[in-house]
Amino acid sequence: MNPNALVEAVPNFAEGRRPAVIDAIADALQSAGAHLLDRTSDWDHHRSVLTIAGSPTAVVEGLFRGVEMAARHIDLFSQRGAHPRMGAADVVPLVPLRHITLEECVGLARVLGRRVGDELGLPVYLYEAAATRPERRNLADVRRGEFEGLLATIHMPERAPDFGPAQVGPAGAVIIGARPILIAYNIFLETNDVTIAQSIAKRIRARNGGFPAVKALGLLIDGQAQVSMNLVDYTQTPIHVVFDAITRLAHDHGVKVARSELIGLAPDDALLQAAAHYLQLPTLATTNTIEGALQRAMLD
Amino acid sequence: MNPNALVEAVPNFAEGRRPAVIDAIADALQSAGAHLLDRTSDWDHHRSVLTIAGSPTAVVEGLFRGVEMAARHIDLFSQRGAHPRMGAADVVPLVPLRHITLEECVGLARVLGRRVGDELGLPVYLYEAAATRPERRNLADVRRGEFEGLLATIHMPERAPDFGPAQVGPAGAVIIGARPILIAYNIFLETNDVTIAQSIAKRIRARNGGFPAVKALGLLIDGQAQVSMNLVDYTQTPIHVVFDAITRLAHDHGVKVARSELIGLAPDDALLQAAAHYLQLPTLATTNTIEGALQRAMLD
Repeated sequence: MNPNALVEAVPNFAEGRRPAVIDAIADALQSAGAHLLDRTSDWDHHRSVLTIAGSPTAVVEGLFRGVEMAARHIDLFSQRGAHPRMGAADVVPLVPLRHITLEECVGLARVLGRRVGDELGLPVYLYEAAATRPERRNLADVRRGEFEGLLATIHMPERAPDFGPAQVGPAGAVIIGARPILIAYNIFLETNDVTIAQSIAKRIRARNGGFPAVKALGLLIDGQAQVSMNLVDYTQTPIHVVFDAITRLAHDHGVKVARSELIGLAPDDALLQAAAHYLQLPTLATTNTIEGALQRAMLD
Repeated sequence: MNPNALVEAVPNFAEGRRPAVIDAIADALQSAGAHLLDRTSDWDHHRSVLTIAGSPTAVVEGLFRGVEMAARHIDLFSQRGAHPRMGAADVVPLVPLRHITLEECVGLARVLGRRVGDELGLPVYLYEAAATRPERRNLADVRRGEFEGLLATIHMPERAPDFGPAQVGPAGAVIIGARPILIAYNIFLETNDVTIAQSIAKRIRARNGGFPAVKALGLLIDGQAQVSMNLVDYTQTPIHVVFDAITRLAHDHGVKVARSELIGLAPDDALLQAAAHYLQLPTLATTNTIEGALQRAMLD
């Protein structure tokens, strides 16, 4: 593995209410040298999403310690929140950032999964690119029934964990995997008619024959229609392509785009691509920015 | 000064033809720990522009050594190129990047200038934010007459150098200063009529009452009209503002924008601002990108 390899991880925990517990998990995640880039907690969802990045060693060790900390403090027999969850450390995706491939992140996910299973005694399911069965690729399929469902079904052969015992304790199970960078991107429309957002979402999403690597839903947020998206491979469908398409489709409905928003972090490159598109700047690369050139000079 | 202060410098040298000399200068610039971010050399102009960044100490020491190397190898009595020059190390601007102010960069420019004058025995003129007289703020004014003119005038009181002797040797004089980040940005029009580019340049540039902090010229480059710009403070006039204005003005002339280009490096932030503008993304900040958050976590 390249000594300058840089990995991101976006672990999700079933705790959004006790700051002391979330702080302890954040400290554990960083304790092996990974950097905490972002953290958000939601009381209603009873969930926290933390983003860390660093060397593969620092990230994998930090994740192991973060999972251990979550398992020690979170009891799913009493935890009730709006967000579905199957474990205290619910979902742990590893993401290749630089000088590392998705396949290498699959390897890291399996190393982490084996340690979590063996040393912490938690059932582990591998998902997305790390899945060992096609029916476990999709997170929603793996998490179906949540913690309570797993209690009743973990003894069934099709529910056999990839690592760890087929037994469920108060910390539940951990879903570990690898995936490319995902951009959570929403576009608000100047209307309170959610059916317009739903109709546009249907037109653009991959599942209904729209743009590749785009998941989309129409929602009503605080009285405003929103097309809520996950761009699961922005190199296939860039941000500006969905923005322009939604602007056109909204126009067909006689509606304007009000604004857009990013949830969490997006790769610099995805936004530079958008700038290059609108400024008709065909040669722009991240190395044309001072920060990009400096980061390259410092890390390479 | 903040221990994480980061400074950029963009020294210009009167040598664009001998790779061994340019390499030696580049090595000297980096020899105290600064990172080389960019380098361009032009045979006709007989000029090289190098961009370095690092801690104030590493950058100032690297610049001193780079000036020394240039003075050792470049003889202006025989150097003839298309680009105006007054010295072997012709212009040395220091630019604040992070955790450092323009005023602190003025201080660094004066420290460097004193050393170049005292230890290398070269006349030094301070310019832009570091200038000691209003008539020395503008580079073109300081460099008027070039090397040959300086030989004849350096004994005059108004030509007295800020540091070093009032004597001119084969390495000429060094113009040292501090300025904010400058973006060199050009927009090509779908026409060979240079008068359209000239008319647009006049409309947008600060000097004629256009946008603040914008310098612009109309040029003909390889048979294509170009509006050539320096954006000397993109926080006052962002890239996308001049792009949109030029698109509209070109449209009034019945002409389209063909493409645009950045010369050298631009700050990430300036391009993210453009992306945010076109994507109607009001909340975007450099810290919303993975790279920005990571750099902040690593440097702060």
